[in-house]
Amino acid sequence: MNLNITYKNYSSWSLRPWLLMKEFDIPFTETLLPFAHSSALSEFSADKAVPALVPILESEGMVIWDSLAIMEYLAESYADKPLWPRESKLRAVARSAAAEMHSGFSALRSECPMNCRSIKIIEPSDEVMRDLSRLASIWAFFAAQDKSEGDFLCGEFSILDAMYAPVMWRVAGYGLFVSTEFSRWSDAMRALPSMEEWYQGSLKEEWSIPKVDNIV
Amino acid sequence: MNLNITYKNYSSWSLRPWLLMKEFDIPFTETLLPFAHSSALSEFSADKAVPALVPILESEGMVIWDSLAIMEYLAESYADKPLWPRESKLRAVARSAAAEMHSGFSALRSECPMNCRSIKIIEPSDEVMRDLSRLASIWAFFAAQDKSEGDFLCGEFSILDAMYAPVMWRVAGYGLFVSTEFSRWSDAMRALPSMEEWYQGSLKEEWSIPKVDNIV
Repeated sequence: MNLNITYKNYSSWSLRPWLLMKEFDIPFTETLLPFAHSSALSEFSADKAVPALVPILESEGMVIWDSLAIMEYLAESYADKPLWPRESKLRAVARSAAAEMHSGFSALRSECPMNCRSIKIIEPSDEVMRDLSRLASIWAFFAAQDKSEGDFLCGEFSILDAMYAPVMWRVAGYGLFVSTEFSRWSDAMRALPSMEEWYQGSLKEEWSIPKVDNIV
Repeated sequence: MNLNITYKNYSSWSLRPWLLMKEFDIPFTETLLPFAHSSALSEFSADKAVPALVPILESEGMVIWDSLAIMEYLAESYADKPLWPRESKLRAVARSAAAEMHSGFSALRSECPMNCRSIKIIEPSDEVMRDLSRLASIWAFFAAQDKSEGDFLCGEFSILDAMYAPVMWRVAGYGLFVSTEFSRWSDAMRALPSMEEWYQGSLKEEWSIPKVDNIV
């Protein structure tokens, strides 16, 4: 399996399946398709008839696009590993919250672009405040669920945490606050060896977007 | 099971799981939470700790939100029915295209809001043209897949068709054209008894949004 991603410092979508595969010991190679000074991604996507958006997984002669679809594919392909929670009710609401992230939180995503190696304190807009408030509700909702021990949303690390992984960087990187439950989750996410590996990767990247690169 | 939706004429998100459940003979009741002249939806969502967005499925004491998460839940709950294609490779790319719809096609969605009972010819913007071009690529991609007989994207009707169902109304309702493959699919979708039932339901709704209600 080969996972096509782009810059670790900026690509929130790339982070999701990458982190999931690392945490569940799913072997893969990775290819960086730079989105700067290159038409690598658009050439790749035109050739494969997929959108010019990372991540793109190549597996079993297939090209699978979209982070959520990739993670559902991995959950099926590695059914012996609990990529989704094993309990069906918890899995149903985990999918709800994952899908909500997939199509929502547009203010947080546009105003606070992921930038692992930078911190910038901002005054959040009302729209970002609403997104943060919704995050707090989601964290409270999962805290109240019947689940296994652990600091992750469903107890043990799952696709749901991978889906929200970039939010850890957004909240930390712009000096925002969600809730104490969220902070505990955020600490657990930051302590994952694979998250540290991603961060170290982002530090090595020489390319930068000046507009969103701040105090390093 | 109870599916909470809003006005059939306008609610593209509501249509998706509704159509899926009808086509696969999954028994359910439906509740209309009007988004006009009422805080029914916001009260419901605050009470259940879910976002104020339809559709919302109530099942087995759970509240499951987001159309894609609801359809994944149904696929698991009715595993004897082929809600997703049975063949794993076809299912993987079907999930990719479904997820692409879930978070994409923003120009088509905002400039051509679904309105089942109205036709208005427009001059599509460049952004809408790009969305239509991508739709043509998706239809060509699925036409080339190894699949069962039938006019639907994966041969037989599946979650993928339900996900794109509102696009049938958008393309027809604004006088747009995608491709001959798309038109064949669109005809098959319009001929579904459940699609006619949805349409008849939309005609009975008295409430309207003047801004998007045109020549009936």
